[in-house]
Amino acid sequence: MSADSSFPASESSGPSAQAVTDLLGALAYGSLVAFDRMAADARLAPDLNRRAALSTMAGAEIANYRRLSERIGDLGADPAEAMGPFVAALDDFHEATAPRDWLEGLVKAYVGDGIADDFYREIANFLDEGDRALVLEVLHDSAYTDFAVREIRAAIEADPKLANRLALWARRLVGEALTQAQRVAAERDALTDLVVTGSGDLAGIGTLFRRLTQAHADRMETVGLSN
Amino acid sequence: MSADSSFPASESSGPSAQAVTDLLGALAYGSLVAFDRMAADARLAPDLNRRAALSTMAGAEIANYRRLSERIGDLGADPAEAMGPFVAALDDFHEATAPRDWLEGLVKAYVGDGIADDFYREIANFLDEGDRALVLEVLHDSAYTDFAVREIRAAIEADPKLANRLALWARRLVGEALTQAQRVAAERDALTDLVVTGSGDLAGIGTLFRRLTQAHADRMETVGLSN
Repeated sequence: MSADSSFPASESSGPSAQAVTDLLGALAYGSLVAFDRMAADARLAPDLNRRAALSTMAGAEIANYRRLSERIGDLGADPAEAMGPFVAALDDFHEATAPRDWLEGLVKAYVGDGIADDFYREIANFLDEGDRALVLEVLHDSAYTDFAVREIRAAIEADPKLANRLALWARRLVGEALTQAQRVAAERDALTDLVVTGSGDLAGIGTLFRRLTQAHADRMETVGLSN
Repeated sequence: MSADSSFPASESSGPSAQAVTDLLGALAYGSLVAFDRMAADARLAPDLNRRAALSTMAGAEIANYRRLSERIGDLGADPAEAMGPFVAALDDFHEATAPRDWLEGLVKAYVGDGIADDFYREIANFLDEGDRALVLEVLHDSAYTDFAVREIRAAIEADPKLANRLALWARRLVGEALTQAQRVAAERDALTDLVVTGSGDLAGIGTLFRRLTQAHADRMETVGLSN
C-alpha cells in the first residue's frame, strides 16, 4: 500500500482519473465474471424455474457490466484495459470458490451480492456526483436477494445439518475474497489511495471493514447461518 | 403430425390455449438454453471486450426468457411445466452444435438469432393480439447482429480459408435445427396444428420454410459465406 495513515482526506481535490478508471474496471470485470460464473452455476439448479432464477441474477450482472463499461468508455479509457489489472484476482477468487452444488451456488450469489453492494455503497461516497450515481445504480435487485434467502432458509429448515456446511462455505467465500482484495490493494496504488483517502485514514478503513463484516454477519443470521 | 392438409384455417377461432402455452414454453426454454450456451461460448472470446459482447447477447436472451415466462404465468401455467416438453430437443440441438472456437460460437449466435427471429415474426401472425405483441418484442437487437456480422466478415477477410469451414458449420447448425424441429412437430400436436393452421395448409408450411431458408441464405451471403 502506497498511502500512509496521515493522507489528508480534506485536502483531496476528488479522486484521480486513474483511481476512478481502476475502480470502474474492477467493478466491470467483477460483474462480467459474476455473470459468467452464475450462468454456469445455474446448471446446478434442481429444476427449470430455479435455474431460470439464478440465470436472471446472472443477467442482471451483465446489465451492470454494460453500464460500467459505457462509463469507462465515456472517460476515454478502453474497458478491456481498465479491467485487465483485476482479471487474475477475480478469476482466482472464482476458481477457489467453485460451488459443488446448487445451495453452495446460491449462498455464493447471496454472500457475494451482499458484500459487493455494501462495498459499492461505501465507495460511492468517495466519488464525484456522476460516478456515485452510477455505482449506486448497479446495486443488486432485492428480489434476487429475497429469492436466495427463501431458498437457503427452506433448505436448512428441511435439513438442519446443512447449516454447518453452508456456514463453513460462507466463511471460505469471505476468506478468499479478503485474500484477493488484499492482493488488489497491494498492486493498485491509485485505487488503494482512493479507498484510504475516502475512509479518512487507515483507522477509517478499519471502521469500514467492521461495517462490512457486521452487515455480512447480519445476512448470515437472516438465512439461519451462524457466522 | 396430427394435422392434415385440409385443416380449415378460416374456421379456426384462434389458437388453442395448449398451443399458445406450448409455443411460449418452447420460446422460453429456447431463450433460457441460448442464454446458458452463449454465456459459456463467451469464454472462447479472444479478448475481454469480445467476451463481454457475446455475454451481452446472452443477457438479452435471459431478459426475453423473463418476459415469456411471465406471460406463461399470466396464462395460468407453470413455466417449468410449459418448457418441459422442449428440453430434450433443444438440449440435443446444443449438444450436437457445441462451438469449438470463438468464430463458430459467433456464427452459431448469428445463425440462431436470425432463424429464431424470422420464425418468431412468422408465428406472431398466427397469434392473438397480446401474444403477438410479446413475440415481436422478444426479437433480437440488431446491434448484436451487426457485431456478429462485423466480426465474421473481418475474420474471413483476414483468412479466406475460414469461409469453407464456417459455411459447413452453418449448414450443420441448420441441419440439426431442422432435425429437432421435426421431432418437436411430431411430438406436440397442438403446436403443430397452430403452425399448420396459421400457414393455411401444408403447402403454406412449405412456403413458410422456403421464406426462412431464403432469409438464412441472404444472411450467409451478408457475412461472406456461401450457403
